Amino acid sequence: MQIIRSIAQLRAWRKTAGRLAFVPTMGNLHAGHLALVEAARQHADKVVVSIFVNRLQFGQGEDFDAYPRTFEADCAKLEAAGVDVLFFPDERELYPRIKQDFNVEPPHIQNELCGAFRPGHFRGVATVVSKLFNIVQADVACFGKKDFQQLHVIRAMVDDLNMPIEIVPVDTGRADDGLALSSRNGYLSAEERAEAPRLYRHLSAIRDALLAGDNRYAVLEKAAADDLAAHGWRVDYIEVRQADTLEVAHAGEPRLVVLAAARLGRTRLIDNIEVTR
Amino acid sequence: MQIIRSIAQLRAWRKTAGRLAFVPTMGNLHAGHLALVEAARQHADKVVVSIFVNRLQFGQGEDFDAYPRTFEADCAKLEAAGVDVLFFPDERELYPRIKQDFNVEPPHIQNELCGAFRPGHFRGVATVVSKLFNIVQADVACFGKKDFQQLHVIRAMVDDLNMPIEIVPVDTGRADDGLALSSRNGYLSAEERAEAPRLYRHLSAIRDALLAGDNRYAVLEKAAADDLAAHGWRVDYIEVRQADTLEVAHAGEPRLVVLAAARLGRTRLIDNIEVTR
Repeated sequence: MQIIRSIAQLRAWRKTAGRLAFVPTMGNLHAGHLALVEAARQHADKVVVSIFVNRLQFGQGEDFDAYPRTFEADCAKLEAAGVDVLFFPDERELYPRIKQDFNVEPPHIQNELCGAFRPGHFRGVATVVSKLFNIVQADVACFGKKDFQQLHVIRAMVDDLNMPIEIVPVDTGRADDGLALSSRNGYLSAEERAEAPRLYRHLSAIRDALLAGDNRYAVLEKAAADDLAAHGWRVDYIEVRQADTLEVAHAGEPRLVVLAAARLGRTRLIDNIEVTR
Repeated sequence: MQIIRSIAQLRAWRKTAGRLAFVPTMGNLHAGHLALVEAARQHADKVVVSIFVNRLQFGQGEDFDAYPRTFEADCAKLEAAGVDVLFFPDERELYPRIKQDFNVEPPHIQNELCGAFRPGHFRGVATVVSKLFNIVQADVACFGKKDFQQLHVIRAMVDDLNMPIEIVPVDTGRADDGLALSSRNGYLSAEERAEAPRLYRHLSAIRDALLAGDNRYAVLEKAAADDLAAHGWRVDYIEVRQADTLEVAHAGEPRLVVLAAARLGRTRLIDNIEVTR
């Protein structure tokens, strides 16, 4: 595996690469990321993974400085997964003027769900992903469904700005007890880790109710939120939405997604389940 | 010359095109546009010109509906100039949901100079140019210096968002009396057309003063604006700025540009001169 730190070098290599798949990450890789790499390998001749902890998508008081940097371990995993190139730029390379002057501005959905709790987050994601797409010029990029709203924003952006790339969604990796794999799971204490799967259990229960024809979204949402709160969670949101647009779902909607974000101690966990009925 | 109206067809053609140069226009072509085409031919094997009157960059009360559409004449000129492909999408092709959801948001310079008089204009330009770049995937794109602030915004955008394209600036075409060639000159009455070169004469006079070491920018600007007003113009601005950043110029600045926008009757004319001293 080649490690490339400069944009110019990556562009030069890209010219030789044939059909190319790209997996952007912030590092601290787990099995969920490796599933993205595996999907990437199935879509192209060569695979680039990037590791870049993007300051732009972290809000004030968020965990930018504390975000785990585990470069050596990440390299070993990517090497073993057969990645061709690791793109590992520093902040100077991606933000040479420190401030990013031009931003890709998503529509109102950027201020809903997770966006309501992380102002500017999806602008930061859309902007850095645009930059990375322009640098890597891959044919395909793989994104996990765990960050469902992020996946939605990226797909809508690619479509709306006519970006010449195909987005491949990849299913959420889960621990045996159902907890969605996430870099932030590493923040959990043993006690919190034992409690954490409750989030997925509630999403699953709402899915089952929806599949049984229940359309009382607000009731289902409130019951889950109340139970989580009773078990020490601070719930940012639990919502049933249209799966394809992320807009508010009306009764009888056939393609739904149940999304949640909630905090256990200092750790914010997110998860979701799609429901087709 | 092939006329292509669909994005899918253009993308298919692009794969066969080798090194490609791109000239985005809004049609109503004049010799200034043909100079862009000539520059494009010198930079690539194939040349694509687009004609698209972009609603997004016109403000309320601006001339979107009245903007001259001269398709047949434009085709003849482009054919004679050796253009390989004319990309001529309709609004449905570029804005299938009517509303553009994702926008490329330029920094504060979008609200200065022309931007102060055309709110949202440079956002609309940056967004449609991003879309066209993503569709055409040219190696090079040519822009005229007549729209100096537009050229600045595009170059800064390409740099800041790492777009894989080279921007080639092309000198302003002028009539014998100095008037910058522009589609909007066609709006001028005979009397206004005779008056119009006064704008360039003032820019030239300011250039001469700057070259002679004059640093009293505000004095030079005001003298020119007052004389234009005395001759029936409504002046939006005349300003001396740093040429490379478009920021406010300090005394002694070596690389300057003098920019102006002013209205003669219903027609808004813009022009500029670069000064290196």
